[in-house]
Amino acid sequence: MVNEAALDAFYKTVDQNQDDYVERLREAVAIPSISSMVDHRDDVVRMSHWLTSLFEKLGIKYEVRDIGSHVMDNVDLKLPPIILGTYGNDPNKKTILVYGHYDVQPALLEDGWSSKPFDMIESPKGQLIGRGASDDKGPIIGWLNAIEAHQNAEIDFPVNLKICFEGMEENGSEGLEKLIANEADKYFKGVDAVCISDNYWLGVTKPCLTYGLRGICAYKVTVCGPGKDLHSGVFGGTVHEPMTDLFHLFSKLVTPNGDILIPGINDDVAPLTDEENQAYQSLEFSLSELHSAIESKTNIYDNEIETLQHRWRYPSLSIHGIEGAFSSSGFKTVLPAKVSGKFSIRIVPNMEPKRVDELVEKFLKDEFAKLGSKNTLSTECLHSGKAWLANPNHWNYVAASKAVERIFKCKPDLTREGGSIPVTLTFQDALNKNVLLLPMGRGDDGAHSINEKLDRSNYIQGIKLFGAYLHEIASCKAE
Amino acid sequence: MVNEAALDAFYKTVDQNQDDYVERLREAVAIPSISSMVDHRDDVVRMSHWLTSLFEKLGIKYEVRDIGSHVMDNVDLKLPPIILGTYGNDPNKKTILVYGHYDVQPALLEDGWSSKPFDMIESPKGQLIGRGASDDKGPIIGWLNAIEAHQNAEIDFPVNLKICFEGMEENGSEGLEKLIANEADKYFKGVDAVCISDNYWLGVTKPCLTYGLRGICAYKVTVCGPGKDLHSGVFGGTVHEPMTDLFHLFSKLVTPNGDILIPGINDDVAPLTDEENQAYQSLEFSLSELHSAIESKTNIYDNEIETLQHRWRYPSLSIHGIEGAFSSSGFKTVLPAKVSGKFSIRIVPNMEPKRVDELVEKFLKDEFAKLGSKNTLSTECLHSGKAWLANPNHWNYVAASKAVERIFKCKPDLTREGGSIPVTLTFQDALNKNVLLLPMGRGDDGAHSINEKLDRSNYIQGIKLFGAYLHEIASCKAE
Repeated sequence: MVNEAALDAFYKTVDQNQDDYVERLREAVAIPSISSMVDHRDDVVRMSHWLTSLFEKLGIKYEVRDIGSHVMDNVDLKLPPIILGTYGNDPNKKTILVYGHYDVQPALLEDGWSSKPFDMIESPKGQLIGRGASDDKGPIIGWLNAIEAHQNAEIDFPVNLKICFEGMEENGSEGLEKLIANEADKYFKGVDAVCISDNYWLGVTKPCLTYGLRGICAYKVTVCGPGKDLHSGVFGGTVHEPMTDLFHLFSKLVTPNGDILIPGINDDVAPLTDEENQAYQSLEFSLSELHSAIESKTNIYDNEIETLQHRWRYPSLSIHGIEGAFSSSGFKTVLPAKVSGKFSIRIVPNMEPKRVDELVEKFLKDEFAKLGSKNTLSTECLHSGKAWLANPNHWNYVAASKAVERIFKCKPDLTREGGSIPVTLTFQDALNKNVLLLPMGRGDDGAHSINEKLDRSNYIQGIKLFGAYLHEIASCKAE
Repeated sequence: MVNEAALDAFYKTVDQNQDDYVERLREAVAIPSISSMVDHRDDVVRMSHWLTSLFEKLGIKYEVRDIGSHVMDNVDLKLPPIILGTYGNDPNKKTILVYGHYDVQPALLEDGWSSKPFDMIESPKGQLIGRGASDDKGPIIGWLNAIEAHQNAEIDFPVNLKICFEGMEENGSEGLEKLIANEADKYFKGVDAVCISDNYWLGVTKPCLTYGLRGICAYKVTVCGPGKDLHSGVFGGTVHEPMTDLFHLFSKLVTPNGDILIPGINDDVAPLTDEENQAYQSLEFSLSELHSAIESKTNIYDNEIETLQHRWRYPSLSIHGIEGAFSSSGFKTVLPAKVSGKFSIRIVPNMEPKRVDELVEKFLKDEFAKLGSKNTLSTECLHSGKAWLANPNHWNYVAASKAVERIFKCKPDLTREGGSIPVTLTFQDALNKNVLLLPMGRGDDGAHSINEKLDRSNYIQGIKLFGAYLHEIASCKAE
């Protein structure tokens, strides 16, 4: 049973201190911890110090893990540390691991921001505008604010918390996977479930819990012809052109309607169950939101449900470009000697990357043979990652769902996403525990765009949501 | 009747002075008159002074035409002048216009040259190696050497010569077309035929006369979808992708065997006559030369004649690349919003650019409609140029052919080329006179490559050829 009096005291404290929380976020936004720029690496490290100071103030035990260095733009740079934290160690409580990142995307006023990106402002509509406000400084500080509010309200913290904050998420999360694997039986020992707040509501009014992500298989397909680029006037019409072959080949991959034509590729796609299909009926999503996101009306499906199903639970194939061909503006009468087409397949349960690779390679080889070209073909899988799907009936989700009902007076949307968040699968595979994506921000926060924002209400209600979620976990029966 | 004694005296003088001619070429090569590099523009102008000094020495009247300025690499630069020359003004003689260029391609030792590119050396095999030796300093100085040899041998020059030397050929011949059009009835008034020495023998042992070039129609085909590039994870499978449409569309243009699939495109191709086909039987060309040029064995036709016919007298279609897609190494999960595919058709007699444009645009529009995509298509013809075909039975060619027999003891190959030399068509259209391409160098001279060379024998025999050609013109009956 949830201690309702304690929760009420917690909410009240959060409301009373909300301006302090906004100031705290403003302080964090002011540190331009851009992980992908050499000149800002010191700021990323400064941001880690800012966090550990707060850890100390809140009595969170922590370790600052040096994960070595890397080369970026030809400069040898120390990687920002991964901060591991432990708050509470009561064997009678569940242990929840929360993950987040303290680095941010680049941002310049000249990009089109309406205010200085690292001077957070609050708009008349209550939007806290600044780089990193929503991605991911708001959420990580949200967890810390929730701890502080329990201390201020003098109520017991309902779980043991393990914390993992990294500073390289916007730049490939270098070193993170290895650390997680190494610490699975050490620092992360005893973790019962994982919660990540680093994604967004589907829309702008209704919270969601996210339980699935598509995976990816990325390919580079190279057609080699002449030993060097040729003049199309001199040789056009007399040699097999790699570009012609590549266009024929790639035209056979997918229809303009998005149907993948590689035989067998759809065989392993998990059938749509009635229960799953039913869940799509109540989602808060409209085609007009899609139109606004893609800035056009070139959607394939004319209804919301098929659109979301093809984003979340069916595979897709996209051609990204060609390396080795003429790509500038203007014109060049070149006959490229060697061209590499790049495409990727977004994979879903129960597709396996290895099987997808086999099907893709066989198909391309067979189709290339049909062309009757004397050029040569090679196919390379550049990288792949499995789809991720959690059990949304697990107590971790049940607790989060109840918490949403407490704070927002509605059931959350149960969503998946079309892209990948690799750390999700890393935690699930390394710890073998349920992972929950519990977003704080809205679908229109513009995480990687100009004028990134986090609504004050999302921030403050989000802190309450995090607290309520942990209280619900403490009281749930299932293990 | 050719004055055989005079010609013999001319040959003898050329042989006696050959080392001086080589030194003269060495002096010219030493001036790095690279027209496409800002830092070398002064050298191009210096090269024009070097030439006019020689004109003065030889008593050639000349005008140095200022053709204005242009912007290159953001620098406002004066264009190198066009040098117009007149040698002789006898109303009883024919007037021949010779064209050439005194600028050269860039060259750096670091590119892989075996010797300094602007310090001409002579290899043990008698190759004069240096940038511009063959393209086009050897030929233009060849004409001047022929004049000087007539003076030294004290024999009458057989024709009136008009000269047009430009300094921007390797950089778009800016200003040339306008000047030619303006001077057609002025400086070039009275010209009976044109001779251009700025191409190459088909092979390495047999001279040729070149009477045809393919034209070109260059297209940019743009498919527009979303208003901005999208993330393929979030939107893949739910929107019509411009890249998918473009690959479908371009796969319908041409087969891997080079057959153009645009309906009607082949209808206007001039039929192969028996006479023309017969002429191909004796050409000096082997597939092994093709293999060495393309550095592979990916030729479509397994015989020389079909290969040359498809290079010279049939159209071809080449896809050059895509603007707006991902083109770097590595991988980017982008769904490009707007992509422009570039392709060109090499056109031949009797194809007309306007008609080709119509067929291409209709075909692309029809095929795009079949795709059922909500994206939009636009097609733009970037530039076009007609094919050029001269009458190889004209006295201009007959004279050149006889001259080749005199010097090389064989009938020249009658060749065409697959690419374009725009000035050829410009002269023909502006003056309405027969134009002959009479190359001095061999097919392996490597005009735009490293270790460009002109064989000493080609240079010296070439000077004799030029002289003999003019004597044959003087004696030919046809007008």
